Amino acid sequence: MVRILVLNGPNLNMLGVREPGVYGTVTLADIEAMLREQAAEAGVELDFCQSNHEGVLIDRIHAAYGNTDGLLLNPGALTHYSYALRDALSSVAIPAVEVHLSNIHKREAFRHVSVTAAVAVGQIAGFGAASYSLGLKALLDHLEAGKGA
Amino acid sequence: MVRILVLNGPNLNMLGVREPGVYGTVTLADIEAMLREQAAEAGVELDFCQSNHEGVLIDRIHAAYGNTDGLLLNPGALTHYSYALRDALSSVAIPAVEVHLSNIHKREAFRHVSVTAAVAVGQIAGFGAASYSLGLKALLDHLEAGKGA
Amino acid sequence: MVRILVLNGPNLNMLGVREPGVYGTVTLADIEAMLREQAAEAGVELDFCQSNHEGVLIDRIHAAYGNTDGLLLNPGALTHYSYALRDALSSVAIPAVEVHLSNIHKREAFRHVSVTAAVAVGQIAGFGAASYSLGLKALLDHLEAGKGA
Amino acid sequence: MVRILVLNGPNLNMLGVREPGVYGTVTLADIEAMLREQAAEAGVELDFCQSNHEGVLIDRIHAAYGNTDGLLLNPGALTHYSYALRDALSSVAIPAVEVHLSNIHKREAFRHVSVTAAVAVGQIAGFGAASYSLGLKALLDHLEAGKGA
Amino acid sequence: MVRILVLNGPNLNMLGVREPGVYGTVTLADIEAMLREQAAEAGVELDFCQSNHEGVLIDRIHAAYGNTDGLLLNPGALTHYSYALRDALSSVAIPAVEVHLSNIHKREAFRHVSVTAAVAVGQIAGFGAASYSLGLKALLDHLEAGKGA
Amino acid sequence: MVRILVLNGPNLNMLGVREPGVYGTVTLADIEAMLREQAAEAGVELDFCQSNHEGVLIDRIHAAYGNTDGLLLNPGALTHYSYALRDALSSVAIPAVEVHLSNIHKREAFRHVSVTAAVAVGQIAGFGAASYSLGLKALLDHLEAGKGA
Amino acid sequence: MVRILVLNGPNLNMLGVREPGVYGTVTLADIEAMLREQAAEAGVELDFCQSNHEGVLIDRIHAAYGNTDGLLLNPGALTHYSYALRDALSSVAIPAVEVHLSNIHKREAFRHVSVTAAVAVGQIAGFGAASYSLGLKALLDHLEAGKGA
Amino acid sequence: MVRILVLNGPNLNMLGVREPGVYGTVTLADIEAMLREQAAEAGVELDFCQSNHEGVLIDRIHAAYGNTDGLLLNPGALTHYSYALRDALSSVAIPAVEVHLSNIHKREAFRHVSVTAAVAVGQIAGFGAASYSLGLKALLDHLEAGKGA
Amino acid sequence: MVRILVLNGPNLNMLGVREPGVYGTVTLADIEAMLREQAAEAGVELDFCQSNHEGVLIDRIHAAYGNTDGLLLNPGALTHYSYALRDALSSVAIPAVEVHLSNIHKREAFRHVSVTAAVAVGQIAGFGAASYSLGLKALLDHLEAGKGA
Amino acid sequence: MVRILVLNGPNLNMLGVREPGVYGTVTLADIEAMLREQAAEAGVELDFCQSNHEGVLIDRIHAAYGNTDGLLLNPGALTHYSYALRDALSSVAIPAVEVHLSNIHKREAFRHVSVTAAVAVGQIAGFGAASYSLGLKALLDHLEAGKGA
Amino acid sequence: MVRILVLNGPNLNMLGVREPGVYGTVTLADIEAMLREQAAEAGVELDFCQSNHEGVLIDRIHAAYGNTDGLLLNPGALTHYSYALRDALSSVAIPAVEVHLSNIHKREAFRHVSVTAAVAVGQIAGFGAASYSLGLKALLDHLEAGKGA
Amino acid sequence: MVRILVLNGPNLNMLGVREPGVYGTVTLADIEAMLREQAAEAGVELDFCQSNHEGVLIDRIHAAYGNTDGLLLNPGALTHYSYALRDALSSVAIPAVEVHLSNIHKREAFRHVSVTAAVAVGQIAGFGAASYSLGLKALLDHLEAGKGA
Repeated sequence: MVRILVLNGPNLNMLGVREPGVYGTVTLADIEAMLREQAAEAGVELDFCQSNHEGVLIDRIHAAYGNTDGLLLNPGALTHYSYALRDALSSVAIPAVEVHLSNIHKREAFRHVSVTAAVAVGQIAGFGAASYSLGLKALLDHLEAGKGA
Repeated sequence: MVRILVLNGPNLNMLGVREPGVYGTVTLADIEAMLREQAAEAGVELDFCQSNHEGVLIDRIHAAYGNTDGLLLNPGALTHYSYALRDALSSVAIPAVEVHLSNIHKREAFRHVSVTAAVAVGQIAGFGAASYSLGLKALLDHLEAGKGA
Repeated sequence: MVRILVLNGPNLNMLGVREPGVYGTVTLADIEAMLREQAAEAGVELDFCQSNHEGVLIDRIHAAYGNTDGLLLNPGALTHYSYALRDALSSVAIPAVEVHLSNIHKREAFRHVSVTAAVAVGQIAGFGAASYSLGLKALLDHLEAGKGA
Repeated sequence: MVRILVLNGPNLNMLGVREPGVYGTVTLADIEAMLREQAAEAGVELDFCQSNHEGVLIDRIHAAYGNTDGLLLNPGALTHYSYALRDALSSVAIPAVEVHLSNIHKREAFRHVSVTAAVAVGQIAGFGAASYSLGLKALLDHLEAGKGA
Repeated sequence: MVRILVLNGPNLNMLGVREPGVYGTVTLADIEAMLREQAAEAGVELDFCQSNHEGVLIDRIHAAYGNTDGLLLNPGALTHYSYALRDALSSVAIPAVEVHLSNIHKREAFRHVSVTAAVAVGQIAGFGAASYSLGLKALLDHLEAGKGA
Repeated sequence: MVRILVLNGPNLNMLGVREPGVYGTVTLADIEAMLREQAAEAGVELDFCQSNHEGVLIDRIHAAYGNTDGLLLNPGALTHYSYALRDALSSVAIPAVEVHLSNIHKREAFRHVSVTAAVAVGQIAGFGAASYSLGLKALLDHLEAGKGA
Repeated sequence: MVRILVLNGPNLNMLGVREPGVYGTVTLADIEAMLREQAAEAGVELDFCQSNHEGVLIDRIHAAYGNTDGLLLNPGALTHYSYALRDALSSVAIPAVEVHLSNIHKREAFRHVSVTAAVAVGQIAGFGAASYSLGLKALLDHLEAGKGA
Repeated sequence: MVRILVLNGPNLNMLGVREPGVYGTVTLADIEAMLREQAAEAGVELDFCQSNHEGVLIDRIHAAYGNTDGLLLNPGALTHYSYALRDALSSVAIPAVEVHLSNIHKREAFRHVSVTAAVAVGQIAGFGAASYSLGLKALLDHLEAGKGA
Repeated sequence: MVRILVLNGPNLNMLGVREPGVYGTVTLADIEAMLREQAAEAGVELDFCQSNHEGVLIDRIHAAYGNTDGLLLNPGALTHYSYALRDALSSVAIPAVEVHLSNIHKREAFRHVSVTAAVAVGQIAGFGAASYSLGLKALLDHLEAGKGA
Repeated sequence: MVRILVLNGPNLNMLGVREPGVYGTVTLADIEAMLREQAAEAGVELDFCQSNHEGVLIDRIHAAYGNTDGLLLNPGALTHYSYALRDALSSVAIPAVEVHLSNIHKREAFRHVSVTAAVAVGQIAGFGAASYSLGLKALLDHLEAGKGA
Repeated sequence: MVRILVLNGPNLNMLGVREPGVYGTVTLADIEAMLREQAAEAGVELDFCQSNHEGVLIDRIHAAYGNTDGLLLNPGALTHYSYALRDALSSVAIPAVEVHLSNIHKREAFRHVSVTAAVAVGQIAGFGAASYSLGLKALLDHLEAGKGA
Repeated sequence: MVRILVLNGPNLNMLGVREPGVYGTVTLADIEAMLREQAAEAGVELDFCQSNHEGVLIDRIHAAYGNTDGLLLNPGALTHYSYALRDALSSVAIPAVEVHLSNIHKREAFRHVSVTAAVAVGQIAGFGAASYSLGLKALLDHLEAGKGA
């Protein structure tokens, strides 16, 4: 059975509180519920995790090594500077899809660059909570396609 | 009935020929067929267009004004320098989703920047032909969400 | 009789539709009418043209060679990257005045730079439709002054 | 009655002396006479002032507060670095039109940037003394248009 | 009763040990004592916290949501790169004052920039331990002023 | 008796008029009154001065040499380019505290840098008129601390 | 029989008119004649094409796929920004030699960079019309060498 | 007896898994064993530690204060952005040698810069696991040399 | 009789007070005396002037027009940003020699660039007060050489 | 009789040894033989020289003054930084053609820039040993064309 | 028998004279003696060479081709700009270890970058003369490891 | 007796030949004669040397150690990139004065920067051959002043 880990970086626990003008009122629990339902329908296992600690995220990625088929990742602001997170993704070589709630190209210049996307399969940004469900779909399709190869 | 225009920029007609190491062997006709099927299932109209001419793409965007609900756009290399295409998108104010076959963050530095994404709803990159179907799904969901608002 | 060509670049056909918060509700047809009246009063011939195609604009500039005394030019977003348009202006050596509806210094950073203005007589920006009539007046005065020299 | 203040920055008193290859032989007194005539015809009051002192220019802008309807401004070289002049314009919120004798886009790179134009209505550059008369016309039209609003 | 949280970032626990030529011999406990006294006099509650972990600081900021009126923050070196800390401050929308012991404009170039100050009320730097007491005073005055609004 | 000079740069005389959205409605006279009261309570002499002329500010700093114990300085927009003002501060070696009404880190990029703060004791920015009173307190404490040394 | 396509970008049709100080008086027809003669001597087929439209050039490159052995290309000003042209060259994988009439290293800084040369076999610049004949010779030698491999 | 602390940053626990093309198959346990043997031969105490948490590394450096003579440090990707780690090294003033498994000058541009090396004794990079043993030797020699001084 | 004007910019009146570690204890009066003696020996008239006001320096340069043969200029910190002073020198076209007391290449980066030297005959920097006497000698020799031409 | 000097910079003596993946197996002696044959056919004298010493190359260029009609130059890596070589070419004003074996636009970024090409007639790059024979042909044609002028 | 060449670049002959505050009092002869002893113990041949001439260093590297197993290289200031030296190292493909006496990351910014290290096995910097002995050890270990492969 | 070494870098032997529009017709022999006469009058020994080889110049500077009191140096184009020459000057710690014939601030941007001037006493540029005599005078005065210290 396909096993997916959904990883959320700093401040995503505050979703629904934080800058609703930018991110809307959906909470991270809502997103988790939505993804669990989508996973159940797809018949895949889903683990869900959020941390404000770069180190915890890295540990969790390492722990996924050998027991996880795909990563769905919203690194939050770490997207823009955490080369350590990037190396963690490289080290386990688990296919990862990066998602962002907001369209990072519309915001401050420092958010236009992703240091983590370069080691991901792809990136989806700008669709609010739907970025996650699109990302999960993209990840599952990617894994499916890889199986046949 | 929801009407969607799928726009493809320069060189996408060469898909399946061009750098298969980067883009795979799927052709643009394959993508069109896939999207038409997806549109039929979703009960939406879909128009499909490709041009190597920036001007033709801009004309087509203008022609969509007043009769199109959403744009699915792969601007090809114009992504990286066509401010005219960006202004065309602004001028009609039709919700647009930008898609890319390859993960632009993994390629040459000039491909990391999108001058058009800043006026789109969001961007999806790196999933091959699946970027288009994810993009269509994202666009339809976005339009649906907007309707209820 | 003095012959003037008014050239408009990408998206200016959408004037009155596009971002009225930035450009107002005047249409390009209004501007053409205004300029034709001004030309009639000044006793000069006026040709008017708009295209979303860089190539069409360049062709039109070449066609003006030998039968046109002055160019009034709003290159739209091509202002910021079309070195080909710049070379077209150089190649025919017809005095050109560049105009912009909005004050480009107040907008996004990429709009602060003009690659075409360096081969024009001068630039007028920020006065809405009036930028055109000021530009025509400036161009005619410039041609008049040159005659006496 | 509409009251206009024409402000000239450093070295413009030397017009006719300074680099005639760039600026021609017209003097600032010629420009003042030309503008006074234009103002008389338009039925507006015109005050004219030149200083080589940034502080005097700022004081004069402040003094205009409450008794002046529009500013016609050639900041000379201060255009390129005087953020204090820029703030003075912001502080009084009187509509200002920036003019330059030469086409600043054709000269040294440091002259391509204007720190003051961002707080002006618009900018006119490259028409010699005619830049001033075009600027005055643009300013009066702008004020007229504002009146009707 | 007004509740204030004082947050200290990496290495501030080493105060009095670390580079005394730059920071002097005052310890963080001294600063805490000084601020507690100042808070008592002002009749406000004060919580005090230091961590070398970016994640702990973010968690603490989140925990302050709904029970804290103001933040006094010295992010240490995180000032210069922690966009995650910046987002944490945005997410809770509690007024924050940033303080630094040393004058960051006098030190290495990387210390001249603060990525966190842009989401704070203001910044105070260069007065040693007094930066904290000035910061607390500034924060309390700011809260007081806001109350009357 | 301790003698303090408060120096204000260009446009600060327009306080209360200028961009109230950014600076509020307090006038410079209000600030002077507030500081004089604070100085009287602290038993120190206070001189107060504003000029829009960089040269006048430099002359005033020189005149303070030998008869002034501390400078409270808001250089206005000169903060961002006046190396001459910076050198004036260095030349007299009187301790100076730089203050700004607004949080310069939240505004245009050119305001993020201070060329004068590098020769000051410290900088306080973002607290409106309170930046001055905090600055005076910081300056007096700094002088007091220096006395004991 | 070896088939060569000679492609000329924007403004090259104006050769002999445009800036003769830079490019001399030879026309594009002269160059075509010269190349046809050279091709005839070498026993190769030669197709010749010029367009001011980026899209036409891209279409023509695509049309060459499967029926052309080598490209001789002068992209004109598109050299410096047309990533779409660059991708067109990549997509057909036909060996291309880039030529320029003038020495681009002696002119404006924006002309020093070629975004297309990176996907060409090589580049020849500075020899006027002779750049073309050298380029054709280089291309034929390159194809000949490849045949033996 | 000389006491050495060996500190390893994020992802080094994955050594032998991560990108073997770059780092080889040696594990961190192998390196620890190798260094313990080398330390035993040299008659020095050696403590060994790895963490994926910046904060844990900083805490560990602080804890070393007063009981450790030298640090052997591989900060992993933190090398390139952790100014907090840099300040931790400064704060304890224990001589540190920075080591890297790969030659950072041969990899991505962001890896060419070390923000931590500026506060170390020196840096050794490119020798695989041998970088550690060379680093330990360098550190012990440095401490020995300092003793005689 | 040859007439020379010696112009000194901001803060040079503080010479002997200001940062003696950098500039020594010689005063500007000492320099004036030294130059007057040198001028007397050379049989040339010498006028000497210092101001902290950019505007006064520009006025003085203009006033020199038609009655002065050469300028000896130390613009102080204006060297690094006063394009207005640069234009003043251009406007009068009097040969100018720029001098600096200190070696500007050894100091802060902003002092390495001179915006005024580009319109001077030459520049002499680093010899303390002797820079002035060398500059006067250089200026007189330059004028002498010009006479014979 | 026309006299040509062929100059080769550092490491070109290693041709055939050095990075055959980039440069192929042809040796510099092969190139010399090829050029001598080509020169003999063209009826021109040819001198051939290689040195790894910038100074020797400059001396050789100087020695060519007055006895050489054209230079064929491959400066090797000096292309990218030797302003002294550039000045040597300027000083003798002998027409020079710059050649490179590889397409410098395809390699590391530092190789994209040539500081010497700006003082050459033109540049040919990317054709292996054929770059030399094309360069010789270009040089001879250039000299021939100049003769007729 | 393993043969090692130790190469020293410009100014290293002045060791012990030059800036002892940075480099200490050890001479290059001392270093040679130390390395010869180390080589003897290791049973390897060692050649030692220093030159202030980039060309001589390149010649020496070429001469090592085919008779040398490893290079120990301190390029001195050439480290920062000699692309010719870099190419020489590439051309012979002999494993090289780069060493520096001082920690280049602590000195002027231009010394932070090495253009030669990118073609070396690794780099060791900051340990004074010990950098050489560490470098020789690293080089011998590297060669040993390669033998077994 | 004071001993002075005059050092000239690449291409200065071509003086009088090279770009007379920039440097005039004076030869280096003329300059040597002029300086020898000046030295004789001043009662100092003068050695004179020119080389196109960076290495020879460095060797000559080293050879001057212990037998030379001052250096008069025109590094030619090496001024702009030879960090090795800079280190040579540092290594011998002989006072040096840098001279340039032309005003480097008026020429190409790469000539505005001197990497050697930062280790010289001062720099004199723009006075043709007179730069040398001014430089010698400046150097002798500097040595004289140092003697009295």
